[in-house]
Amino acid sequence: MPTFVQILDFIGTFAFAISGIRLASAKRFDWFGAYVVGFVTAIGGGTIRDLLLDVTPAWMLDPIYLICTGLALLWVILFGHYLIHLNNTFFIFDSIGLALFTVVGLGKTLDAGYAIWVAIIMGSITGAAGGVIRDVFINEIPLIFRKEIYAMACVAGGTLYWLCSLAGLEAFVCQTVCGVTVFATRLLAVKYNICLPVLSGHEGGGSKKV
Amino acid sequence: MPTFVQILDFIGTFAFAISGIRLASAKRFDWFGAYVVGFVTAIGGGTIRDLLLDVTPAWMLDPIYLICTGLALLWVILFGHYLIHLNNTFFIFDSIGLALFTVVGLGKTLDAGYAIWVAIIMGSITGAAGGVIRDVFINEIPLIFRKEIYAMACVAGGTLYWLCSLAGLEAFVCQTVCGVTVFATRLLAVKYNICLPVLSGHEGGGSKKV
Amino acid sequence: MPTFVQILDFIGTFAFAISGIRLASAKRFDWFGAYVVGFVTAIGGGTIRDLLLDVTPAWMLDPIYLICTGLALLWVILFGHYLIHLNNTFFIFDSIGLALFTVVGLGKTLDAGYAIWVAIIMGSITGAAGGVIRDVFINEIPLIFRKEIYAMACVAGGTLYWLCSLAGLEAFVCQTVCGVTVFATRLLAVKYNICLPVLSGHEGGGSKKV
Repeated sequence: MPTFVQILDFIGTFAFAISGIRLASAKRFDWFGAYVVGFVTAIGGGTIRDLLLDVTPAWMLDPIYLICTGLALLWVILFGHYLIHLNNTFFIFDSIGLALFTVVGLGKTLDAGYAIWVAIIMGSITGAAGGVIRDVFINEIPLIFRKEIYAMACVAGGTLYWLCSLAGLEAFVCQTVCGVTVFATRLLAVKYNICLPVLSGHEGGGSKKV
Repeated sequence: MPTFVQILDFIGTFAFAISGIRLASAKRFDWFGAYVVGFVTAIGGGTIRDLLLDVTPAWMLDPIYLICTGLALLWVILFGHYLIHLNNTFFIFDSIGLALFTVVGLGKTLDAGYAIWVAIIMGSITGAAGGVIRDVFINEIPLIFRKEIYAMACVAGGTLYWLCSLAGLEAFVCQTVCGVTVFATRLLAVKYNICLPVLSGHEGGGSKKV
Repeated sequence: MPTFVQILDFIGTFAFAISGIRLASAKRFDWFGAYVVGFVTAIGGGTIRDLLLDVTPAWMLDPIYLICTGLALLWVILFGHYLIHLNNTFFIFDSIGLALFTVVGLGKTLDAGYAIWVAIIMGSITGAAGGVIRDVFINEIPLIFRKEIYAMACVAGGTLYWLCSLAGLEAFVCQTVCGVTVFATRLLAVKYNICLPVLSGHEGGGSKKV
C-alpha cells in the first residue's frame, strides 16, 4: 500500500508547489524565489505540524520533496503558458493533495498520542498552513481567511474521521472517509460557490487596542 | 490558587482573541479566518515560547483556548456593534492578559532552567508575539513596532521581577510585582500617550544591502 | 581558533542587525521596533535552523547577540547620517556574516547527523532566513526572492563543501572553501550585477487555486 500513498503524496506535493510557483511568478520572483515559495507551500504545513509535535520534519529525511518542487519549477518554466488550460486538472490535483495531507497530518498526530481535536487541527494545518506562508511571502492577505471553503474542508474531514472512529470503524476506513470528505467538500464548495459568512467590518479596535 | 490564575488566563485569552477577531473583521475575513486570527493572537506568543523552550504548547493539552476563542467569535458576531462602547473595558482585559501572559512566560522559562534575561524575553514574547503574527496575517506592519508602549511594558515587568528576586523576595511576590508593573506601565503609557522615540528615516540600505 | 570565529560571528551579527535596523528606520519604527527587527534579522535564520534540528537556539545560551544588537542600534542612533558613506563597508561585513553563518549552519547540521543536502539547506536558512523575517515584519516582499544572488551564494558554498568532502579534504579546508565561495559569489554577483532569470508573469492561479 505505501506505493499508492506515495504516489498521492507526490501528486499533492507537485500541485502545492505549482500553486506557490505560479503565484510567485505573478509577482515576478526569480527562479530561486519561485522555487523557495513552491517548496514552502508544499512542505510548510507539515513542517509546522512536526515542530508542534516535536518530530523531525519529513522533508529533512527524504529528498523527494526537493526533487518534486524542482520538477514543478521546470514544468512552469517550460510549459507556463499551457498551465492556464490545465486549471481544472491542477484544481483536482490540489484537492487530492489537500485530502491526503489532512489524512497524513491527522494520523501522525494520533500516533503521537494526542487527542482527536488536536489531530483535526493538525490535519488542517498540514493541508492549509503552507498556503498561508506562501501568501505571507508574496505579501498578500492569506486567501484561506477570506475566500471559499478550504481549511474548513479539512475540519469537516477530520470531524468525520472522529465520528467513524467513535462508531468503531477500522483506521483505514476512517482515513478513506476523511480523505473523500475533504476532497468532496472542496469540490462542491467551488462548484456551487459556497462561502462562509463574512464578519461585517467593525472599525478595527481603535487606538487603544494593540 | 489555580482557579484565580485560570480565570485571569481565560480573561486574557478572551481579550486577545477579541482583538484578533475585530482586526480580521475590519479586513472582511470570513468566520473561519476571523476565528483563526483570533486563536493565533491568543496562543501565538505562548506557542513560539514553547517551541523555543522545547515543550508542548499549552493549547495542545487543553481545549479551553479553542473554546474561549469560539466564545469570542460568537460575542463579536452577536454584539459586534456594541463593542465600540466597550473599548475601555477590553483595553483593561487586554492589559490584564498582557500582564498575566508575561508572568506565565517568565515563570515557565525559569522553571526550564534558563537565565533571567532569557525569561524576560520569553515573557515579552508570550505577551506580544501573538499580536505580531496577527498583524502579519492581516498584512499590516506590526503595531507594537511603531506605536505606544506594549512589549516594553513586559520588559519593564520582567526587569522588576529580576530586581525583586535579587532582593531575595519570594516567587509569588516577584510575580505580583511583575504583573502589576506590566499592567500599570501599559495603562500609564496609553493614558499619558508615552511613546518611544522613532528612528529618523534613513534610506533603507541602498541597493547593496539585502 | 574560537576567538577568530567569535570575532567573525560578532561582525556578522552586527552587520545583519544594522541591516534590519536601517530598514526599520526607513519605515519609521520606534527604538524598540528597530531593536527587535535588528535582532530577528541577526538571529532569525539560526533560530529556524535550531528549531528544525531540535536544539536550543544559540542566542538563548549567550547574551552576546542581544548586546551586539544593542550596540548596532546605538550606532544607528548616534551615527545614522554617516552610515550612507559606509555602504561598501557594511556590504563587506554583511557578506562576511553571510559566509560565516552558512559555514556554522552547515557544520551544526552535519554534527546532528543529517545528510549533506539537508546541511546545505540549513546553511542557506542560517544565512538568509533572518532577512526574510525582517522583510515580512516591515511588510515588504522578501528581497532575496526577487533580487541579486544572495541565498544562491550559500547554496554554491554548500555545494563546494560537499565536493571538497567527497574529495576527502579535511573539515577545516572544506569550511574555508565554503566560506570563501559564499563571500566571493556574493561580491562578484553584486559587482557584475548577476541575477537569476525572472519567471515571466502568469496570472496567479485563477479563482480555483488557493
